Amino acid sequence: MLIKAVRTFEKDQTKGDITKISNIAKERKMSNPRVVDGTIGALYNDDGHFFAFKSIDNVIDKLQDIDKYPYAPINGGAIYQTQVLQWVFGPFLARVVAEKHLAVCATPGGTGALSIALYHYLDINETLLIPDLNWPVYEHLAKEFGINVSTYHLFRDDCFNIEGFIEAADAIVKKEGKLVTIINNPNHNPTGFSMTYEDLYQLGDYFKRLEEENIPVVFIYDVAYIDYWDYQNGRKGLNIVCDYGKNVLTLVTFSASKSFGIYGMRLGALIAINQEEKVIEDFRTWSTVACRTRWGTPNRIALSIFNQIVTNKEDRDEFMSELKKAQELLFNRSDFFIRKVKEYNIPIYPYQGGFFAIIKVQDSLHLYEYLKDLDIFGVPFDSGFRLALSSMSIKDIDKTLIAIRQYFEIYRM
Amino acid sequence: MLIKAVRTFEKDQTKGDITKISNIAKERKMSNPRVVDGTIGALYNDDGHFFAFKSIDNVIDKLQDIDKYPYAPINGGAIYQTQVLQWVFGPFLARVVAEKHLAVCATPGGTGALSIALYHYLDINETLLIPDLNWPVYEHLAKEFGINVSTYHLFRDDCFNIEGFIEAADAIVKKEGKLVTIINNPNHNPTGFSMTYEDLYQLGDYFKRLEEENIPVVFIYDVAYIDYWDYQNGRKGLNIVCDYGKNVLTLVTFSASKSFGIYGMRLGALIAINQEEKVIEDFRTWSTVACRTRWGTPNRIALSIFNQIVTNKEDRDEFMSELKKAQELLFNRSDFFIRKVKEYNIPIYPYQGGFFAIIKVQDSLHLYEYLKDLDIFGVPFDSGFRLALSSMSIKDIDKTLIAIRQYFEIYRM
Repeated sequence: MLIKAVRTFEKDQTKGDITKISNIAKERKMSNPRVVDGTIGALYNDDGHFFAFKSIDNVIDKLQDIDKYPYAPINGGAIYQTQVLQWVFGPFLARVVAEKHLAVCATPGGTGALSIALYHYLDINETLLIPDLNWPVYEHLAKEFGINVSTYHLFRDDCFNIEGFIEAADAIVKKEGKLVTIINNPNHNPTGFSMTYEDLYQLGDYFKRLEEENIPVVFIYDVAYIDYWDYQNGRKGLNIVCDYGKNVLTLVTFSASKSFGIYGMRLGALIAINQEEKVIEDFRTWSTVACRTRWGTPNRIALSIFNQIVTNKEDRDEFMSELKKAQELLFNRSDFFIRKVKEYNIPIYPYQGGFFAIIKVQDSLHLYEYLKDLDIFGVPFDSGFRLALSSMSIKDIDKTLIAIRQYFEIYRM
Repeated sequence: MLIKAVRTFEKDQTKGDITKISNIAKERKMSNPRVVDGTIGALYNDDGHFFAFKSIDNVIDKLQDIDKYPYAPINGGAIYQTQVLQWVFGPFLARVVAEKHLAVCATPGGTGALSIALYHYLDINETLLIPDLNWPVYEHLAKEFGINVSTYHLFRDDCFNIEGFIEAADAIVKKEGKLVTIINNPNHNPTGFSMTYEDLYQLGDYFKRLEEENIPVVFIYDVAYIDYWDYQNGRKGLNIVCDYGKNVLTLVTFSASKSFGIYGMRLGALIAINQEEKVIEDFRTWSTVACRTRWGTPNRIALSIFNQIVTNKEDRDEFMSELKKAQELLFNRSDFFIRKVKEYNIPIYPYQGGFFAIIKVQDSLHLYEYLKDLDIFGVPFDSGFRLALSSMSIKDIDKTLIAIRQYFEIYRM
């Protein structure tokens, strides 16, 4: 007799275990404030304090009891659904609404959106396609739901590897007759890479070929870092992926964590876009049950904050000026970072924007240990070492890159 | 080619679809404040306003940025874990800790706790045992995860039907070699029934028999309404179910929704108790992955509110005096309700406490329609009609019971 969970897991490995490494860094920093913590996927000020939006605090002060404490509508309610679309699609919304059917479901962060999407569009032992450089939670998610993972090299000569994508996708399609893939864009985690519009069009061409073969595609477009590129560029990619053919169900996963600095409040959305109303109707039905049976309702206070910020001009203006400051804080760091890696001849993967950049290094665990001894923390990935520019001051970045330059001088073959 | 979710559902039925009925009631009430809404599983004042705790508002005012906005620890963190145990077990905690191994995982409400527990202890096509009168979300949950449901009549002569439980459990055990069951106690939803201590001991005797046959049991004890009975009585049942043998993994699902009036903030916990550390270690491993891949982290502001309320004497005292008021509000209503149903000779299932009571009626949809025409709303169940005393004033209850008496005078055979 053994009381054991039906689905268990090995103990976590160090590589890619961001939470574990982040906890080590945090503990070290408690006793020594000079520790550099480049592990945190949240925006921190240069003084090491969390970047909080005063405008959000002001909104909380104004909220009534019923905006905070009662249950919320399961899918987020009409205001949230409308306003999330407006926020995410911006100037392109009118066209998308005119040409497609859409549905929106509130979720706890981008994670909640990804979680229900994968569970509902992939059966056990079916395959999810993601790049080799990816947010480790994608793989944990797949494992949790008994889904296989197939990967392709994200880059070929530092450009999006469309050939690799197609080759891996074709193999899945041949076996399973369908394709489900996640693309995290713009400002991909862990690299900061943003695909070109041409890349996105080429994906569309490939999906068109699949349409001729009657192959359905669920294209999950994870825009968690959309607000840390320039506004127009971030949204324009969305406009392209909403134009994919009728065999493609585009699922946009939105996270309010980074855009609004409310990481711990767990707010996000899963947005479904397709030409066929019945595909969207199916989405509405299953997503309501999925949310009801996982977390009950979204977090009401987070919904109220979002709704108030985006619909009230005064609050919105105040928030937008703070968001601009947040973006500038990050842009200054990434400018400095890019300048220094060039100067120091440190190899990195292409970075366009977002919270993370990644050093090209094969033995990333070795670099991790080397830097750890110097009280500098980042996260080792399979073929790179990730630094969270979001949580590092320019001084931190400088210190870290000097150490990495030394590392390469010692160990580069 | 069809882009269809792997797991889809029929459109919801009226019977048991609480959300849908609740929305109808809410809409009606918008245009007519005299509408009686007996559908809401949340505490409302007699004036129809949501019962909010001022002490919670005061705590929110005092919280720092880092208590509200950053990501929280996946499992809730040490303070939350310790304090939830203290809150739930009260005077019995020391003994349980001394004799058993425990683990705690923060979840979005009781729903989140139930959701990951069922997914991880029942494989597809295995069977969950619940009573025929149950919270419909249990069945939705099972459906979502491909789990079968077996039911037993909750009552036999208005007492807990232990024979029915054992008969249904034996059938599952014979087929599947294990047993997973949920008991919602005290103050069961939808009846308000609380099992006697003798009932709980008898369950233990049955599980002991299963131990001799080497049958593992996962006993899910849902205490969502524990704080709306008297303190000692609510906790004493817990003390008994923690004493079940080593073949029983007791999983307590806690909800902060009702106890703290923070329904929409989605805070709860899944607590695992067993004699074997390795059973609890297995729980810790899978539950971390389950939470990480479903909602990322718990809601930080809700964690901070809970932690502050229970650890700060001043805040706790203020909160406890408000909780007492909340309890009295409900006790007064239920006293009145019980008195009137006796006076009017309206048959109900046994009610001891909690938010809901249920009228015994076979054709509950017929009663639902009858009352709806009188602008009175409750929820039809398979063999009863549920009234949320939590959301009804004494005047509402009076009006409703008079209408139900008339209904029975007209339609009782």
